[in-house]
Parts: sequence; C-alpha cells; structure tokens
Amino acid sequence: MIDDAIKKLAQEPNFAALTTLLPDGRPMSHMMWVDADDEHILINTEVHRQRFKNVERDARVAVTIINRDNPYQYAEVRGRVVDTTGGDEARANIDALSRKYVGNDYDPAAITTERVILRIAPDRQRAY
Amino acid sequence: MIDDAIKKLAQEPNFAALTTLLPDGRPMSHMMWVDADDEHILINTEVHRQRFKNVERDARVAVTIINRDNPYQYAEVRGRVVDTTGGDEARANIDALSRKYVGNDYDPAAITTERVILRIAPDRQRAY
Repeated sequence: MIDDAIKKLAQEPNFAALTTLLPDGRPMSHMMWVDADDEHILINTEVHRQRFKNVERDARVAVTIINRDNPYQYAEVRGRVVDTTGGDEARANIDALSRKYVGNDYDPAAITTERVILRIAPDRQRAY
Repeated sequence: MIDDAIKKLAQEPNFAALTTLLPDGRPMSHMMWVDADDEHILINTEVHRQRFKNVERDARVAVTIINRDNPYQYAEVRGRVVDTTGGDEARANIDALSRKYVGNDYDPAAITTERVILRIAPDRQRAY
C-alpha cells in the first residue's frame, strides 16, 4: 500500500523525479507528471523512451515526489515497475494527467509512439 | 565545464534530487541544496549518510535541479563524484548554502558527524 501522505502528494499536481538505470547501471533521472492508486505510484511515458527501455531491462526505480509549493516537503519511493500497460488505458490516463496538470486533454500530436503506464510497487517509501 | 544555464539554475536557491547507487545497484534519491562552480555541481552532505557511503563505493550519480518557480524548467546532470572535501572548507560551504537558502548560517547543532562537499563532474548535462 502507498502511504496516505505520499498518495496525496502524488495525486495533487506535483512533479516527480523518476530515476531509472541505464544498461551499465548508471542512474538517469527525469522530471515527470505522477499519480498514484492505493498500491502503486503511476508514471506515464512512451515506449520509445530510454526510461521505458531501462525499466523493461531492470525494473528498479526511485521516484522523488516534490510538493511544488514547498520543496522541503517531498517523498522518496524506492520500488519496482511491476506492470506496464499501453493501449487505450494509457491513452486515457495521459489525458487525465494532462487535465490535472494543465487543464485540458493531452495534445495527440505530442505522442511519438505509444503511451504506457508504469505501475511502481514500493519496496520502501518515506515522506520528508 | 558546467553549461551556463545549468550553473545559474544550481547557483540560485533551487533544489536538486541527488541520486546515488546502493550497494546492490538500486537507485536512491534525496532532495538537497545545490551549488555549482565552473566545472562541477556541488552537494554538501555528512560523512555518516548512506548517500556519502554510496558515492565512496560507486561515484556515479544523477542530479536533477529544478527551478522552484517553474518545475517544467529543470536540468539533469549525469556524472561522477571526482572529489570529496571535508573539514573547514565543507563547514564554511554549508554556512554559505544555508545563507543562500534560509538567510542565516547553518545550525551547528544540526551537524551529526562531519560536513563534506561532493564535487560532481558531468558526463552529460541537459537543460529542459
């Protein structure tokens, strides 16, 4: 289960630094939109991205979610990508995320390949 | 050399997600104060922290620096900790950082062991 305070942080329009591992084990981070359900941190990306290739090869990630109004309030979740879902569900999810962050559906022209949802189960989660 | 836009981002009172690697290779991230000189991203931590033990064992890190006024403006630096400096220099540096972020010297009572500066040389840097 995702801690309530961390779920709230992820469900509000805050940003997350997603860290994945490159083939040689080096960490790579990007700022991402984020969401959560009761059991997972959710990230939506595209299948051609290095971060997606990384998690297909090594599911271990770190997600740092930052309160945009107070950077001293943040959460770190270490965990694993336990499921990836593309197709209509990922397409609907990126529209929902876009409405949350910018107030309207996602621009279809911004999609290069295919959207995909990463479901991240926590091994360790802590709020600061 | 650190790109000018990234140096500026690191020298203003913005926050950074520092990612280090745990002994088994998993990524670990924390929000940190940050600074830069012409050639390095600078992070100040303490020697008892897991993040310091991590970089002593594996110098590879990722640093994501986020504009606190606009989370869509951020930089990712992948690199290596090429030098660690403790003692008076690290003690003076944490006071300077504290003045930058909160307006006064660092609280000495908040120091558990010894402050240490991590100098990170970039392998790759990109501003978004």
